[in-house]
Amino acid sequence: MKLIRFGDIGSEKPGVQLEDGTRLDVTGFGQNYDENFFGGDSLERLQNWLNANKDNCPKVDENTRLGAPLCRPSKIVCIGLNYAKHAEEAGMAIPKEPVLFFKATSAIVGPNDDVVIPKGSTKTDWEVELAVVIGKKASYVSESEAMNHVAGYVLHNDYSEREFQIEREGQWVKGKSCDTFAPLGPFIATKDEITDPHNLNLWLNVNGEQLQNSNTSDFVFNIPESISYISQFMTLLPGDIISTGTPFGVGLGFNPPRYLKPGDEVELGIEGLGTSRQVARAFKLD
Amino acid sequence: MKLIRFGDIGSEKPGVQLEDGTRLDVTGFGQNYDENFFGGDSLERLQNWLNANKDNCPKVDENTRLGAPLCRPSKIVCIGLNYAKHAEEAGMAIPKEPVLFFKATSAIVGPNDDVVIPKGSTKTDWEVELAVVIGKKASYVSESEAMNHVAGYVLHNDYSEREFQIEREGQWVKGKSCDTFAPLGPFIATKDEITDPHNLNLWLNVNGEQLQNSNTSDFVFNIPESISYISQFMTLLPGDIISTGTPFGVGLGFNPPRYLKPGDEVELGIEGLGTSRQVARAFKLD
Repeated sequence: MKLIRFGDIGSEKPGVQLEDGTRLDVTGFGQNYDENFFGGDSLERLQNWLNANKDNCPKVDENTRLGAPLCRPSKIVCIGLNYAKHAEEAGMAIPKEPVLFFKATSAIVGPNDDVVIPKGSTKTDWEVELAVVIGKKASYVSESEAMNHVAGYVLHNDYSEREFQIEREGQWVKGKSCDTFAPLGPFIATKDEITDPHNLNLWLNVNGEQLQNSNTSDFVFNIPESISYISQFMTLLPGDIISTGTPFGVGLGFNPPRYLKPGDEVELGIEGLGTSRQVARAFKLD
Repeated sequence: MKLIRFGDIGSEKPGVQLEDGTRLDVTGFGQNYDENFFGGDSLERLQNWLNANKDNCPKVDENTRLGAPLCRPSKIVCIGLNYAKHAEEAGMAIPKEPVLFFKATSAIVGPNDDVVIPKGSTKTDWEVELAVVIGKKASYVSESEAMNHVAGYVLHNDYSEREFQIEREGQWVKGKSCDTFAPLGPFIATKDEITDPHNLNLWLNVNGEQLQNSNTSDFVFNIPESISYISQFMTLLPGDIISTGTPFGVGLGFNPPRYLKPGDEVELGIEGLGTSRQVARAFKLD
């Protein structure tokens, strides 16, 4: 299944996207895509419900805004420097064990919402990433068990303000957590939809020019290794997001570096997980 | 008012603690202490409701477990090295601007729950901290407006595994996010209860020996500075926690360092915010 959420910011409803692209409103199922949904048997029940009720589900108009395809999770855990060639462009060594950092969940937006360049920012950068959605509480899980804790996968652009991240005092979180810095979607593909998550092409264009183009086969640490590793340090809850790192081709890596300015158009995609598109705009007080 | 939550893990009910220490069950008010509660006018409504209904509220037995005095917030933002003498013991420079890091909200527990020494840990350390509870969404707020975004204050022990935090690859979050590493409470004191949050004694004992003893007047960055600063990088939501850093006297600072072992008893307190007590125990699979 492909899970979507649609509607106005803050009141997104649950839906599914069919093979032919049709989007159905599944509000009638009675659950939104939150921790309870991912942690229980709701995915299976939704599939059964859909088999019986598909013909009665309202269609979602194609002009309707897509939200992030899940409710705000407890956390977004990101893996840093998880593609060897990206570590090199960032001027950092390939890590011996996964580098972890958090991104504020208040940064989550829909896949095609504008990305807001924060006040005072001159170094807003892009990062196409495969994100994993946790389907079952994970604490001290082994690599061999880890894939049982996955609900699905989703496209993520891990926007990063490089001055905030690297040149201000302390930890990376400052450059990762600005509002709109975590567009998720268009949909969550449930685990059964993706035959091999370790062999997916992923790419990102800025104003039509392809700047990132790689494959998840280049991971330094693969998905079971990452889940098992993270679960030694904290408990992953259903709905939590693990973002698996970005490949070569971020703005920081160019000489001179290239960063986003208002009006720039960022498009990205991962094989099997669709595409998203964000237009950069300057911060403006509401 | 002093807000408490009580009952079994995962099903805590809201209550208040009166001046004489009596604890009342305010389930009848109809709201738990979550983002909606802190973000609206619920504090005022609860006070009015209590004036009318106090005599009919069930008393909470004093043997009942206290939970953290709020529902899981969207984030815990911590300020690092915010007391000059602690920066020195940690071997780090006094920061020129606040150092920020996150702690997983899955680490939150009640004030008197056991602290679990993680699997493989030999460096589990304590940090008594004054935590601020956000009462109103904060994005790009000025220092002069910042205190309008505070709902109250709560005692926090920012447990930290120093090997995970410092000696493993990357960011501090690995050493800050283990389950049980964020005991909060006994209660949230609403803002009106604390005349001057920048002049509160705080202390921490291990097995009866006082190891931390300082005053929030020693902050490097005060509360309005910290709120305003964080809000330049991310949006703070109602119920979010800002933990304002720990003073001198953590285990890492001793020569040789001192860390917790199973059976150790940690007691801590802040003037006006009560005391909490955690017993350290070894990790054991459920």
